[in-house]
Amino acid sequence: MSDDTSDDSRTEALAAVDAWWRAANFLTVGQIYLMGDPLLRKPLTPESIKPRLLGHWGTSPALSFIYAHLNRVIVDRGVPTVYVCGPGHGGPAMVANAWLDGTYSELFPEVTADESGLKKLVRQFSFPGGIPSHAAPETPGSINEGGELGYSLMHAYGAALDNPGLVVACVIGDGEAETGPLATSWWGNAFLDPRSDGAVLPILNLNGYKIANPTILSRIPEEQLVQFFHGHGYEPILVTGGFDGENPMRVHERMATAMDEAYARICRIWTSARDAKTLAERTTEMPPMIVLRTPKGWTGPVEVDGKPVENTFHAHQVPLSGVRDNPEHLAQLEQWLRSYRPEELFDSRGRPVSELAPLRPDGGLRMSASPHTNGGTVEPLVLPEIDPHAVVSEREDGTLHGSALAGATGVFGEWLRDVVAANPTTFRLFGPDEVASNRLQAVFEETGRAWQLPTVPTDENLATDGRVIEALSEHLMQGMLEGYLLTGRHGLITSYEAFVHIVDSMFNQHAKWLESASKVAWREPVPSLTYLLSSHVWRQDHNGFSHQDPGFLNVVVNKQADIVRVYLPPDANTLLATMDHVFRTENRVNVVVAGKQEQPAWLSLDEARAHVDAGIGAWDWASTGTAEDDAAEPDVVVACAGDVPTFEAMAAVALLRERVPALRVRVVNVTDLMKLQDPDHHPHGLPDDEFDALFTTDKPVIFAFHGYPALVHQLTYRRTNHANIHVRGFIEKGTTTTPFDMVHLNDLDRYRLALDVLHRVPGLEAKSGMRALADEWHQARTDARVYAYEHGEDPSWISDVPVER
Amino acid sequence: MSDDTSDDSRTEALAAVDAWWRAANFLTVGQIYLMGDPLLRKPLTPESIKPRLLGHWGTSPALSFIYAHLNRVIVDRGVPTVYVCGPGHGGPAMVANAWLDGTYSELFPEVTADESGLKKLVRQFSFPGGIPSHAAPETPGSINEGGELGYSLMHAYGAALDNPGLVVACVIGDGEAETGPLATSWWGNAFLDPRSDGAVLPILNLNGYKIANPTILSRIPEEQLVQFFHGHGYEPILVTGGFDGENPMRVHERMATAMDEAYARICRIWTSARDAKTLAERTTEMPPMIVLRTPKGWTGPVEVDGKPVENTFHAHQVPLSGVRDNPEHLAQLEQWLRSYRPEELFDSRGRPVSELAPLRPDGGLRMSASPHTNGGTVEPLVLPEIDPHAVVSEREDGTLHGSALAGATGVFGEWLRDVVAANPTTFRLFGPDEVASNRLQAVFEETGRAWQLPTVPTDENLATDGRVIEALSEHLMQGMLEGYLLTGRHGLITSYEAFVHIVDSMFNQHAKWLESASKVAWREPVPSLTYLLSSHVWRQDHNGFSHQDPGFLNVVVNKQADIVRVYLPPDANTLLATMDHVFRTENRVNVVVAGKQEQPAWLSLDEARAHVDAGIGAWDWASTGTAEDDAAEPDVVVACAGDVPTFEAMAAVALLRERVPALRVRVVNVTDLMKLQDPDHHPHGLPDDEFDALFTTDKPVIFAFHGYPALVHQLTYRRTNHANIHVRGFIEKGTTTTPFDMVHLNDLDRYRLALDVLHRVPGLEAKSGMRALADEWHQARTDARVYAYEHGEDPSWISDVPVER
Repeated sequence: MSDDTSDDSRTEALAAVDAWWRAANFLTVGQIYLMGDPLLRKPLTPESIKPRLLGHWGTSPALSFIYAHLNRVIVDRGVPTVYVCGPGHGGPAMVANAWLDGTYSELFPEVTADESGLKKLVRQFSFPGGIPSHAAPETPGSINEGGELGYSLMHAYGAALDNPGLVVACVIGDGEAETGPLATSWWGNAFLDPRSDGAVLPILNLNGYKIANPTILSRIPEEQLVQFFHGHGYEPILVTGGFDGENPMRVHERMATAMDEAYARICRIWTSARDAKTLAERTTEMPPMIVLRTPKGWTGPVEVDGKPVENTFHAHQVPLSGVRDNPEHLAQLEQWLRSYRPEELFDSRGRPVSELAPLRPDGGLRMSASPHTNGGTVEPLVLPEIDPHAVVSEREDGTLHGSALAGATGVFGEWLRDVVAANPTTFRLFGPDEVASNRLQAVFEETGRAWQLPTVPTDENLATDGRVIEALSEHLMQGMLEGYLLTGRHGLITSYEAFVHIVDSMFNQHAKWLESASKVAWREPVPSLTYLLSSHVWRQDHNGFSHQDPGFLNVVVNKQADIVRVYLPPDANTLLATMDHVFRTENRVNVVVAGKQEQPAWLSLDEARAHVDAGIGAWDWASTGTAEDDAAEPDVVVACAGDVPTFEAMAAVALLRERVPALRVRVVNVTDLMKLQDPDHHPHGLPDDEFDALFTTDKPVIFAFHGYPALVHQLTYRRTNHANIHVRGFIEKGTTTTPFDMVHLNDLDRYRLALDVLHRVPGLEAKSGMRALADEWHQARTDARVYAYEHGEDPSWISDVPVER
Repeated sequence: MSDDTSDDSRTEALAAVDAWWRAANFLTVGQIYLMGDPLLRKPLTPESIKPRLLGHWGTSPALSFIYAHLNRVIVDRGVPTVYVCGPGHGGPAMVANAWLDGTYSELFPEVTADESGLKKLVRQFSFPGGIPSHAAPETPGSINEGGELGYSLMHAYGAALDNPGLVVACVIGDGEAETGPLATSWWGNAFLDPRSDGAVLPILNLNGYKIANPTILSRIPEEQLVQFFHGHGYEPILVTGGFDGENPMRVHERMATAMDEAYARICRIWTSARDAKTLAERTTEMPPMIVLRTPKGWTGPVEVDGKPVENTFHAHQVPLSGVRDNPEHLAQLEQWLRSYRPEELFDSRGRPVSELAPLRPDGGLRMSASPHTNGGTVEPLVLPEIDPHAVVSEREDGTLHGSALAGATGVFGEWLRDVVAANPTTFRLFGPDEVASNRLQAVFEETGRAWQLPTVPTDENLATDGRVIEALSEHLMQGMLEGYLLTGRHGLITSYEAFVHIVDSMFNQHAKWLESASKVAWREPVPSLTYLLSSHVWRQDHNGFSHQDPGFLNVVVNKQADIVRVYLPPDANTLLATMDHVFRTENRVNVVVAGKQEQPAWLSLDEARAHVDAGIGAWDWASTGTAEDDAAEPDVVVACAGDVPTFEAMAAVALLRERVPALRVRVVNVTDLMKLQDPDHHPHGLPDDEFDALFTTDKPVIFAFHGYPALVHQLTYRRTNHANIHVRGFIEKGTTTTPFDMVHLNDLDRYRLALDVLHRVPGLEAKSGMRALADEWHQARTDARVYAYEHGEDPSWISDVPVER
C-alpha cells in the first residue's frame, strides 16, 4: 500500500478520478440517447438520437463515481475487488466503465477501444437486439442482475466466502434497500469469517428516490441512519455531496478519504483475525460500510421545462424526452453532454486519454475483468465414492426390493459429510435452519455452522469457520449460494418443499441469468444450483396445511429446458446416485425432492445408478404376472414418481397381485421428471417410441405423482397414450393428520390406486367378485382413517406390504 | 384509564396474571401431550399420552405470558387490542388463552368450558382430524398463520390502518425476525398516520433460538439491539427475565410496567396527532416496541436425561419424548404439569377459577373475540358506476371493434380514483412503487401516498393520510393488504407481472388461509385479494429478459378452484367490467392481467359486461366469412386470451381474411381463464357441450395465449378437441427489443399465427398459392425485425390492422 499522500499527488489522483467519472457519465448519457456521432464531433442533430428513449439515468452517475474511486483504491492498494451493482438500470454506467477499463473491447472485439467501437457501444444499449438496461450477464464483471431488486448484498456475501483476499464492494440503491431480501442481507456479516473469508463493503447510495417516490432510508434523520447501521453491526462512513451544484472535487476528496478509511479498516480486521491465536484476541471493530448521499441524476439537467429534475424522482428515467422533435431539449442534451468536456477525455481516434491510464488497474484487478465474476475460477469438485454409504442388501442376489428401510436424506447426509470434507474451501451447504430437521446432521461430524456472534456453553455445532450456513431466511440462503456459485464454487441448498416457493422469483432470475449467460461467449460455465427439497408435501402431516405444497416443480418446468432438471428419487440409493450426478453438472438448476422419513429401499446402488442414468424404467420385479408376461403388453401400467407415491403404488400393486392375480400390471418408476416430456421440448425427453413401449399406446395408465396431477398432463399431453393417463397427486387437500391420511385425503392411497385400476381396465369392473373387492377396499380406506382418528396414528398394517412378486 | 396503582391492587392484579399464565401453560402442555384426564385428576398414566407427540413447546410460554399481560392492560384501559401471533407452533398457547377467555367454547360449543370440553381441547391438538400446531384460521382471534414465517408484522400494520382506536399487538419470534419480509416490515411505521390509523405494538420475543440454531437478534449486544430499533424508528422497552429460575413474579412486575409504558406512549402519540393543528405540533416521540427476553421453553423441564433443555434449542419441540414408554419421562411430565398447580386454577367441574375472571375483558374486547379478526366488521364497498369511464364509440351502432385506442389501466385508473373517493376509510391501494408506472396516477387527483417521514418541496403526492401505500417491497405491500382485508376492509395490489413471483408463497399461504377459513363456521367472509398485474410480459420489451415472466398464473391455478380466479381482459372496457365484478367478490384471490399501453378497444361497455359475465365467447364481428357462415362450423378457430395475444390474433385473422377469403375463421376470446377448465375441476368451467360448440370437436384451434402455452394444455386436456388445440404463448424467449419483436421471438406474432392456420387446416397448405403466401409472411416477419433492429422501433405498418370483417 502506498504511503504517498502528498497534496500534489492526491490532487492529481483526484483529478484523474474526476476525469474518469466525467468520461463514464458522458458515455452513459451517450448510450441512453445516441445512435451516431458518439463523441459529438459535430453539432447534435435529431438523426443521432434514438427513436425510442428507453434508458434510465438516475442511478448511473453515482455508480460511476463509486467505480472511479474503487479503481483508485485498487491501483493504490492492489486489493482485488469485485463490484456488485445493485440498483436497477445501472447497465449503461457499468458498460461505460468496463469500456474505459479496456475490458469491454477485449471481450467484445467488435466494440473497439476507439470511435468506431464507441458508435457500436452507444447504439447497442437498450436497442433491439442490443444489451439490457441493467447490469446483466452481458455486463463484464457482473454477478448480479439489476432487474428484480434486492439480491445484491446476499450475492456479495456469497462471493466473499472462501476468498480471503477479496473485497466485494456492493452498491445498494436506496430503493432496493426497502426490499425484504435486502433488509435481511445486512446480517450476512454474522457468517463471514475474517480469517478465511473476504470482506463485503456495502456502499448504500442514498440518491433519495426510487421510481416515483422518495425512499425511506433517505428521509430518516442522519442520527437514526447511523443507529440503523450500528444496530446491524456496521461502522457507517458517511459521505454527502453534490447538492446545489457543489463542486464535485470536494466530494471526490471526501469519498477518497472514506474509501481509504474503509479499506484500511477491512485490512485491520483481516490482519487482526489472522494474527490472533484466540477469538478473544481478534479486534472487535465493526466492518465498515459507506453511505453515499448524492442527488439522483447528479450532473444531469437541473431543470427541464422549468421543472426540477436533478435530485427528484424525475431524474429516474430519461430526464429529457422527445429530443428528436423538441429543439430546446435537443440543445439541452447537447449542453449536458458537452458539460463533461469530452474533448479532454478522448483523443482524436476516440480512445480514452492517457490521463485516465493511472486509474486503470492491471489485468484481472480491473473489476470488469475480475476472474471471480465470469466463472473463470471454477475449482473442480472432489466427489468421494458413494458406494460406502449405500443401503446394502442382506440377500444373496443383492437386491433390496423393499427388504430394508432407510431414510433417504439421512443416508445422503453421510456422504454429504464426506463431500464437505473433501472440498474444504470450495463447497458450502446452505439452509434456512433446516439442515438438522432435514436429517443432514452427519455433516456436523465434519464441520459446524458459520457463526461470528457470541456463543454460550450450550451451543452446538457453531464455528467461526463452519461450512454450513443457516439463517431463517430462504432468501438469504439462496442468495448467498448464488453468489458462491457465480464466483465458481460449489454448494447445495436444502429447504422444506412448501417454503421453497419463498424463493420462486429468485429461482426464476437465476435461471434467466444462466440462460442469458450461456449465450455470452466469454462467460465460463458455473456449477449448478441444486436444491434438495425434503420435509415434502406428503410428510407434512404433522405441520398441517400451511406446510403442504409441491408447486415449486410447476414453477421450475416453465423455465428453459436446457437449464432445469427435476429429480424424484424413490429411495435412498437413488437419491445418492442422483446427487452424485447433479453435483457434476454445470449451468443448471437441479431440483431434487426426497423424504427424510424411513421408507423401503427399493434399488441396490447398481440398480439405482442405472435408474438415474435412464431416468425412467419398468420395475419388472414389482410388476405382476410371470416373468414371461413382462415381454407381453400389460393390461395396465401403474406409474409412480416420488418416494411416497412409489410406496403407495407398490402397495396398490401388491393388493392387485394378491386379489386379481391374472391381471398383468407393469410398474414404471420415473425418477427424472423431464423424461416425461417429448424430446422436442426437453433434452431429457424420452423418444416417443420408448415412451410408447413403456406406457403402451392404448392401455390405462394409473400414475401416482408426487406433485399436482396437472403437471404430468402438462408434460405428457403430446404422448400417444395421453388420453389414457390418469393421474393422482396432491389436490390441495391437507390438514394435521397422519401420513396415510394425507394420501387418503388426496386420493393417492393404495386402495384408491387399486380401485382406479379396477375401474379403468376394460371389462374388469364387470367381472364377478370385483364389486365386492371394490367395496372391501373402500372399507379398508375408511377403516384406516377411523383407526387413525381414534388412536392418533396410522394402523400398523399400513406399512406392512409384500411388494415383490 | 385507571389511576389505581396502589401496591395491593397491583400485587393482586399480578397474582391473577400469573395464575392466568400458569393455566395457559398447563393447558398448552396438556394439548401437546394428553389425550385423556386433562386436569390430572389421577396419577398420569401412559394411556393418557398421545401416541405421536407432534406439538412444539418452546414458543408457547412467552406467548401466554404476553397474552395475560395484554388482558390486564385491556381490562385496565379498555383499549381494543388485536393479538397477532407471529412465531411458529404457537397454536396451543393461543387456543389455551381463547379457552380461558371463554371464546373458544362460544365458537366451538362442543369444547365446553369444563372438564369434558378440556378433554376435547387437549385431544384435538395436532391430532388427526384436529387442529394445527400453528395459530391458524381455526384459532379464534387470529389473522396470521404461524406456518410460513415472516408476515406477522405486515399483517399487523395492515390491520391497524383506518382503525384509529385499535392497538395491534404483534408478537414476533426471533427466528421469524430473520426473514426478509419481517426485516422490512419494521418500516410499516412510515405509513401509519396516528391521526386516523391505529397503532402497532411490536413485541419481539427473544427466546434465543429458532429450530436448531441461536438467533441473530438474541446474540447481538443489547446496546446494538437498542440501536437497531432506534434506527428503525422505535423506542424499545426492554424486559428480561425468567433465567436461572428467577421468580416469575418479578418478571411480571417488569412486564406490567413495560406494557403500561407502551400503551401510555401510544395514547400520547394518538392524542398529540389528533389535537395538533399542524404536522409540526405533533409529538416526535417514536412509537414503542417491547423486547421481551425470556428462556425458550420457560417453565418447562430444565434438564432431560441430564442435558439442558430450557433456554436451549432443545426446548423447541417436545422436551420430553417417548413418554409412553419411558417411566422417568412420564414422571417428569407429571411433575411439570403439576408445577402449574392446576388445583388452584380449575374448579371441581374444570372451569377456570373466579380469580381469573378480572383478567377476562368483556365481549369483543377479548382478543380471541375481536370482531376485527373474524371478518365481523366488513363494510360494504361502495362502487361508483363504471359507465362514465368507458371508452365510447364514435360510430352509430355503438360498436368499437378496434376503432379507438385506449390504455386499459389508465382508463381503469380514472374509475379507481372514484372508488377511492367513495370509500374514504375502507379502501386502499398498495403497490411496490409502480402505481404511477402502471398508469393509475389518476388516483392522485383524489388522494396521496401515505408518508409520515419528512418531506421536501419537490415531493409529489405525499400525504400523512394518503390512501395509497407504496414501498419497494412486494412482500410488505401484499402483507399489509392481507392484514387490511382480513380485518374486513377492501383493497387492490398492483405489480409488474414478472415480479409478483416475489410473493408466490404469500399468495399460496393466503389462498390456503381462505380455504381453511371457509370451513370455519364462525369466520365471516372477507373481501377478496385482487391483483392487477400490469407492465406484463409482452410489454417489457424495454426492460428485458429479467422483467419477462407470465408464470404467476401457473402458481395460481394450482390452488383450490373455489378460491382462485384469473382474468385476462382484452381491452379497457373489459378491464373496467372485470374490476367492477371482482371488487364485489368475497373470499377469493382474483388475478387480473392488463396492459398499460395504448391498444385497440374492441368491446363497448355493454359488450364488455356481457363478455365478463360469459367469460368466453366468439367474436363474430372479427371472424371471417359471411354472417351466414357464423352458424356453420368454421374451418379453424383462432382463440386468444390476453390483450397483446388478442391484438396479434386479430391481425392474423385480418391477414387471412384478406388473402384466404374463403376460409371460415372463428375468433374466440377468453377473458376468464378458468372457463377453459372442465366444470368438474372449476366452478367457472364451461360445460363440455358449450366448449365443443365454441371450439368444435375436430377443427384445428390456434390459440394465442398470454402466458406459458402448457397452461392452456393443463386446463383443456380433458376437452374433446384437445388434440387439435395448438397454443402459442411465452416460451421464455426474451431480450431488450421492440414490442413486435417480443411476440415474434416467441412465435406469437400475427404472421406465425396465420402460418399456423395455413399449416393446420387440412388441405390448405396444398392449395395453390399457399406456399407463396407462406413465403411472403415469413418474409414479412423477417422484414419487421430487420426494420426494428435498424431503426430502433417497430415499423408503423405493425399497428395498422383492418380487424373487422
